[in-house]
Amino acid sequence: MSDPLRIALAGPGTVGAGVIQLLNRNGDMIARRAGRRIDITAVAGRDKTRARAADVSGYAWFDDAAAMARDADADVIVELIGGEDGPALKTVEAALSAGRSVVTANKAMLARHGARLAELAEAHGVTIAYEAAVAGTVPVIKGLREGLAANEIESLHGVLNGTCNYILSEMEATGREFDDILAEAQALGYAETDPAFDIDGVDAAHKLALLAALAFGAKPDMDGVTVKGIRGISPEDMRHAGELGYRIKLLGGAALTEGRLEQWVRPVLVPKTSSIAAVSGTTNAVAVEGDFSGSVLFEGAGAGAHPTASAVTADLIDLARGLCPPVFGVASGALRELPRAPAENRRSAFYVRLQVLDKPGVFADIAAALRDHEVSMESVLQKSRAPGAPVSVVMTLHENAESRVHAAFKAVEALEAAVAHPVIFPIEPC
Amino acid sequence: MSDPLRIALAGPGTVGAGVIQLLNRNGDMIARRAGRRIDITAVAGRDKTRARAADVSGYAWFDDAAAMARDADADVIVELIGGEDGPALKTVEAALSAGRSVVTANKAMLARHGARLAELAEAHGVTIAYEAAVAGTVPVIKGLREGLAANEIESLHGVLNGTCNYILSEMEATGREFDDILAEAQALGYAETDPAFDIDGVDAAHKLALLAALAFGAKPDMDGVTVKGIRGISPEDMRHAGELGYRIKLLGGAALTEGRLEQWVRPVLVPKTSSIAAVSGTTNAVAVEGDFSGSVLFEGAGAGAHPTASAVTADLIDLARGLCPPVFGVASGALRELPRAPAENRRSAFYVRLQVLDKPGVFADIAAALRDHEVSMESVLQKSRAPGAPVSVVMTLHENAESRVHAAFKAVEALEAAVAHPVIFPIEPC
Repeated sequence: MSDPLRIALAGPGTVGAGVIQLLNRNGDMIARRAGRRIDITAVAGRDKTRARAADVSGYAWFDDAAAMARDADADVIVELIGGEDGPALKTVEAALSAGRSVVTANKAMLARHGARLAELAEAHGVTIAYEAAVAGTVPVIKGLREGLAANEIESLHGVLNGTCNYILSEMEATGREFDDILAEAQALGYAETDPAFDIDGVDAAHKLALLAALAFGAKPDMDGVTVKGIRGISPEDMRHAGELGYRIKLLGGAALTEGRLEQWVRPVLVPKTSSIAAVSGTTNAVAVEGDFSGSVLFEGAGAGAHPTASAVTADLIDLARGLCPPVFGVASGALRELPRAPAENRRSAFYVRLQVLDKPGVFADIAAALRDHEVSMESVLQKSRAPGAPVSVVMTLHENAESRVHAAFKAVEALEAAVAHPVIFPIEPC
Repeated sequence: MSDPLRIALAGPGTVGAGVIQLLNRNGDMIARRAGRRIDITAVAGRDKTRARAADVSGYAWFDDAAAMARDADADVIVELIGGEDGPALKTVEAALSAGRSVVTANKAMLARHGARLAELAEAHGVTIAYEAAVAGTVPVIKGLREGLAANEIESLHGVLNGTCNYILSEMEATGREFDDILAEAQALGYAETDPAFDIDGVDAAHKLALLAALAFGAKPDMDGVTVKGIRGISPEDMRHAGELGYRIKLLGGAALTEGRLEQWVRPVLVPKTSSIAAVSGTTNAVAVEGDFSGSVLFEGAGAGAHPTASAVTADLIDLARGLCPPVFGVASGALRELPRAPAENRRSAFYVRLQVLDKPGVFADIAAALRDHEVSMESVLQKSRAPGAPVSVVMTLHENAESRVHAAFKAVEALEAAVAHPVIFPIEPC
């Protein structure tokens, strides 16, 4: 058996403790699989004496993670500090510059600085592995980088944020309001005290930018992701979607069309019969469409100490086996800067809910607005009768350009009979 | 860029032609990803002049695949001949003995001779890659060998045969009989002229034996798989299962319990809400339960020239990148010979359908037989009334030892009122 792979771990929080537990419990088996042991030699954190789910007393302790990345007796640095910049970025830069590969779960940092860091890694003959950064335990980074590497990837989409998926699943199951379920998710530890990062779609956008970079051999383009979160989704829309055979999910999607990259995170309706619709609770899933493979789905726990530790350690086993793949699937010099697909050209089917006064001629006015903007309707249903008072009208549209749909319903909103903003969700075939 | 990886391809049939097409179409992109080109140099087949979906005139031609494996100007041999023994086995042995890695889709050969071939590969410092042998395009071999390598695998189960899954999906969708759908599947090319290999579960058992070997670090034990196919499944049972919230699937499953390996292929009921239940048509899927990861699902096309070519080429890209993982996840010397778990100890819930005469006292006799064998029932429903004539009685049982269930219904079958063999399917929670 070869010499052990020596690991220095920055950030012994929940996931870090999970990695320590995993290597303690499964270390012998991992050594048989990797052909060598994986041994932690050093840990860096803010407070050595803090209570943790794993004992860190046996490892060299560093207060300064970047110093550890440079000086520790280690081959690989595991960065679990988190955050786009600051100590995490400093630690990763120090590690790579010292010729040490990095394993990280830090999607924010990679989505923002990934291209530059990939270049730095390559210059020093090392790599950055980040299986844990996207979809938790699910080996979708490996799936794209290796499993589907023979394919021209056409598109991908997925449930990338467990907090949002939990909230939407619970809203659908119970019929309760968003704020109510969010508060419950916070109490259960499924949502942060400040939930904005998750529920506004930023976390999913980070992950999507990494998946797109890897799938299309491009530099991560976080600012090119159109992002809309799940605030304001109502039990009423969930119910109507359900009656129409759909379910509301926060999806992230990316596609390369005529050389232009489309990236989005937004709530969409998916058919209940699709595999993505069956992804419930905090589970994550990614579906990838390759030109030879067709559609391939990866699904599993999106977060949690143990599932995430499984992904971090898988990367360590790869490194122990001598694998050193290019960070985004191709040499950093070959990474493309893809032009962004204009959002207004995007086409899809739509679900729309209007609040209008129940009076003669309203349907005619709505239909005229749609005709004027060349938007074609599939179905319309007035959900109740209340002459002179506001009622919900639920419509589905055929595939239309998104910009036209929004323009048409801006005109609808200007009608005298309109009493609220139209609620508009794309329908994804999945 | 490094020197090209030179490939010699044995068996230029449907999948082989797909590989040639893939390397022609995506070759430049693959070279960027692999860091070197993958070039076919030689092809071996029975008839050079036969019409094919890909042009083979540019490659050195061999009539003898084993001779090609030994003599061709190649680094890697792709074996797509098929069959447990014969020319496929000879070709692989010749390749490994000549120090050439093998990429193969041949589950039958590996399920039977895998342990010995792994040893041969290792002795010559090469490997056997077989992503295409299980679940077609789906990177589940890589998922187990690498993506989930940090985990002690507890169990796995999956839809491993597209032909069976297509037939069952169609039976459920149309309510038509097995023989009818089978004939249609044969006409569509989804089933072979001699369908036994698929519908009797043998093909799924080969794949299951490979998954189990990799998951548990054991020698493939094809003879240890309890196999039952899908002949005789009736639309009536599909309908009853559906009314109870289940769907009938041919699953393969393996689990390691107290050091004993359980392996089975059989029709089971799965909850309609499970991810596995949503796997329809010729799609394959595998769910793996790891001690840290929890459940991870891999899903995609189970067959077809292009999807299978994607998996074959993924293996080639790995080899081009210098990856040479142990065939079954650990060094062949460390592969275990796991004792088999006695089938009679297996416990699960059950669905049972009886045909009995509709007369007083029958339920009491059945209940007594169950009590005598300590089998606990969950529900029972007589599907119609026809005094004195045969009626269907559908029962679900709580978790019980399989041996007891079979003994109890042997006693039921002996009752005067019983007019047919009981139909018994396990219910898998999934």
